[in-house]
Amino acid sequence: MLSVMLQMIRQQSETVPQCTLENMFVAVMDNIFLLVLVTLLSVIQNVFFALKVEKECTHSKNSAAFERLSCANRNCMDTYPTFLAVLWCAGICLSQAPAAFAGIIYLVVRQKYFVGYLGQTCQSTPGFLFGKRILFFLSLMCVVGIINHLMLTYGGSDYKEYIQTITKAASTLLLLP
Amino acid sequence: MLSVMLQMIRQQSETVPQCTLENMFVAVMDNIFLLVLVTLLSVIQNVFFALKVEKECTHSKNSAAFERLSCANRNCMDTYPTFLAVLWCAGICLSQAPAAFAGIIYLVVRQKYFVGYLGQTCQSTPGFLFGKRILFFLSLMCVVGIINHLMLTYGGSDYKEYIQTITKAASTLLLLP
Amino acid sequence: MLSVMLQMIRQQSETVPQCTLENMFVAVMDNIFLLVLVTLLSVIQNVFFALKVEKECTHSKNSAAFERLSCANRNCMDTYPTFLAVLWCAGICLSQAPAAFAGIIYLVVRQKYFVGYLGQTCQSTPGFLFGKRILFFLSLMCVVGIINHLMLTYGGSDYKEYIQTITKAASTLLLLP
Repeated sequence: MLSVMLQMIRQQSETVPQCTLENMFVAVMDNIFLLVLVTLLSVIQNVFFALKVEKECTHSKNSAAFERLSCANRNCMDTYPTFLAVLWCAGICLSQAPAAFAGIIYLVVRQKYFVGYLGQTCQSTPGFLFGKRILFFLSLMCVVGIINHLMLTYGGSDYKEYIQTITKAASTLLLLP
Repeated sequence: MLSVMLQMIRQQSETVPQCTLENMFVAVMDNIFLLVLVTLLSVIQNVFFALKVEKECTHSKNSAAFERLSCANRNCMDTYPTFLAVLWCAGICLSQAPAAFAGIIYLVVRQKYFVGYLGQTCQSTPGFLFGKRILFFLSLMCVVGIINHLMLTYGGSDYKEYIQTITKAASTLLLLP
Repeated sequence: MLSVMLQMIRQQSETVPQCTLENMFVAVMDNIFLLVLVTLLSVIQNVFFALKVEKECTHSKNSAAFERLSCANRNCMDTYPTFLAVLWCAGICLSQAPAAFAGIIYLVVRQKYFVGYLGQTCQSTPGFLFGKRILFFLSLMCVVGIINHLMLTYGGSDYKEYIQTITKAASTLLLLP
């Protein structure tokens, strides 16, 4: 009898989840560090754009080129808060890996858009459309994440595993031109 | 004696909070999903504004109308990061329901402001003032949330329940014209 | 024997971390309330800038002064999402106190930049460079935080304590002119 009780106590202390606050922060970091990396990359890109505009402003005498560069920079900056908002919402609501992947593709597209603007104006349109597709994908991830959360709360069924697998597969479709 | 101890063990395993990491994420989602919804709505509105400007830019020959539309869009975009920041701070610090409610009213006001800009310039001023009132309300929520947190940490008294009730009641005052 | 077991049960109920969801939110608030304060200050500064521009727009007849003020405001607003993103990432990844301190210095620099713009255009350049140094410091904090997290996950060694101490010391270097 006593040995059974001792075993119960030991077993209990193993089954009780060791959810210290320290563990909690490690778990939080586990779920956002890719998003932080993408955010950092986007910040470096922003600084690169700003330096380009500043250099063109001080050195170049070509007013049209500066105008075009400044316009490209403003277009990128206008959509930047929107991009950050959906990136983080999608990453937190559903899964960080596909969100970070879509974010990196968005950064590549933005780079192509900015460089395309330096050449001719007509090159910029495809980049703008591509950006919209990625924002749509990230928004869809948010919506699916919220619907899954509501189903888990009110219906009791959790499809998060399946959805995350589907999302990871679907995110590769963003690579299509 | 043994039965008392068995009861103690059972009681303990019930009172120990089952705070697994899985539970934690559900709890986090519970506290932010309304904010995510409002953020998504604001993103959709941003895209709507951008499409309006793009359409006016390519199709219309009326330069003044495009100028006005572009200016309205820029005004909305300029305050967008500020709005997002106070919305999320207020939602996390105090309570998400009133913050999300104020956020939705802000989006309605922004829509009225944007559409008003399409007509005449004089219509835009009330919308701008209304937006400031909502931002002030959200900032106040942040301040109250931080003061309550400091009182809880250093004073030991927690008025969060009362404050949340008052905030919910006060948020309806934003509906006043 | 029984008394030993009673002691075990009592001891266990003390050592098991009382990580309720309530505790969790207090811990989260503990780790972000300085960031929320800095965000609020930046929002107040944004509103102050916007009011300055609005007042200059309606009252002044000096077109050049309004142009300069509007340009200063736009420059500040363009880097605002970038600033918020690195501030929060640095605060969450590593430690909030140095991040909030750097954030406050950034706000002071921005104020000096904005007021300097009101005088002459040449005064604005140093402020712009100072801002870049703070953004670089915050980005570095993010990178160090992520590297430490990866080392903790894959290597098992945790240098967070040392890094936080070094960061706090390094943040005072930002006070150098």
